[in-house]
Amino acid sequence: MNLRHYVRDIPDYPKKGITFYDITPILSSPEAFQYVMDQLYEKYKNCGADKIVAADARGFIFGAPLALRMGVPFIPVRKPGKLPFKNRCVTYDLEYGSDTLCMHVDAVDPGDKILMIDDLLATGGTAEGMVQLVKEAGGEIVGCGFVIQLGFLDGDKVMKAAGVDHDFLIEV
Amino acid sequence: MNLRHYVRDIPDYPKKGITFYDITPILSSPEAFQYVMDQLYEKYKNCGADKIVAADARGFIFGAPLALRMGVPFIPVRKPGKLPFKNRCVTYDLEYGSDTLCMHVDAVDPGDKILMIDDLLATGGTAEGMVQLVKEAGGEIVGCGFVIQLGFLDGDKVMKAAGVDHDFLIEV
Repeated sequence: MNLRHYVRDIPDYPKKGITFYDITPILSSPEAFQYVMDQLYEKYKNCGADKIVAADARGFIFGAPLALRMGVPFIPVRKPGKLPFKNRCVTYDLEYGSDTLCMHVDAVDPGDKILMIDDLLATGGTAEGMVQLVKEAGGEIVGCGFVIQLGFLDGDKVMKAAGVDHDFLIEV
Repeated sequence: MNLRHYVRDIPDYPKKGITFYDITPILSSPEAFQYVMDQLYEKYKNCGADKIVAADARGFIFGAPLALRMGVPFIPVRKPGKLPFKNRCVTYDLEYGSDTLCMHVDAVDPGDKILMIDDLLATGGTAEGMVQLVKEAGGEIVGCGFVIQLGFLDGDKVMKAAGVDHDFLIEV
């Protein structure tokens, strides 16, 4: 299956000159969505992960089904104020400004082997923030999978600099 | 399995006097999460749904795996500005103020049989907005499932008034 046919290019979104890669056609096709999940499962079924961590909101769509299939806990990462129990947060730098990501303090324990899942690796800002969050909790990242990697941005370099061996299903 | 043991009460969240029902312990337990998905699947496997609609963000965690298991498209509903293609939106009244929900214009077609999935039925505001969104697109709601219903709020009445036959796994 050529997954690229299920990624819709949206020109000038969210702003002029930027092309957004819309994954909703994958979700609208039960065959394509199942194919993505099968590919992720095959890549990571033997990675030794104790838990899967994924970011609000599109990361949940791929991370939750994979956690169910692998039989491991699912850990949601969200913006400040979204998770009701005690939070562990990191603020990380972006090209312009900064952003903050949080998870519950009881989500990742020291020594946990973590698989990170997200839909898209672009500049790597969010992914790097998630790496930092997991590491500060004492977790070890044993896998990091994206559905799409944007090859013309620096996400790949950022992940390598963060010491994380990542993978993806398609590159655009 | 008593799912209630996997719902954590958070007093005074998001504000004083309100108790928030935290579902992350369900997600942290592969057995509990799988049990929820099995229960939802048994309830809805024969409901005749063509598509599953779920709201950002916690609805994605339950709606996406159910769509995969039932072999039907998954339709994300989000706040304005979050879905990149052309949007269909509804603005609906809440007790204080209003809110807006959107989906892609090609997400639900006239005559589609829709299963709505969300984690929590509280006042019913969001659920009613989703019903309106589906109906305006010409969809018919053939099922509507929540993990938790808050019995002390009016969500149950609101759904009945909206003409939707809903169900839930636990009531608190």
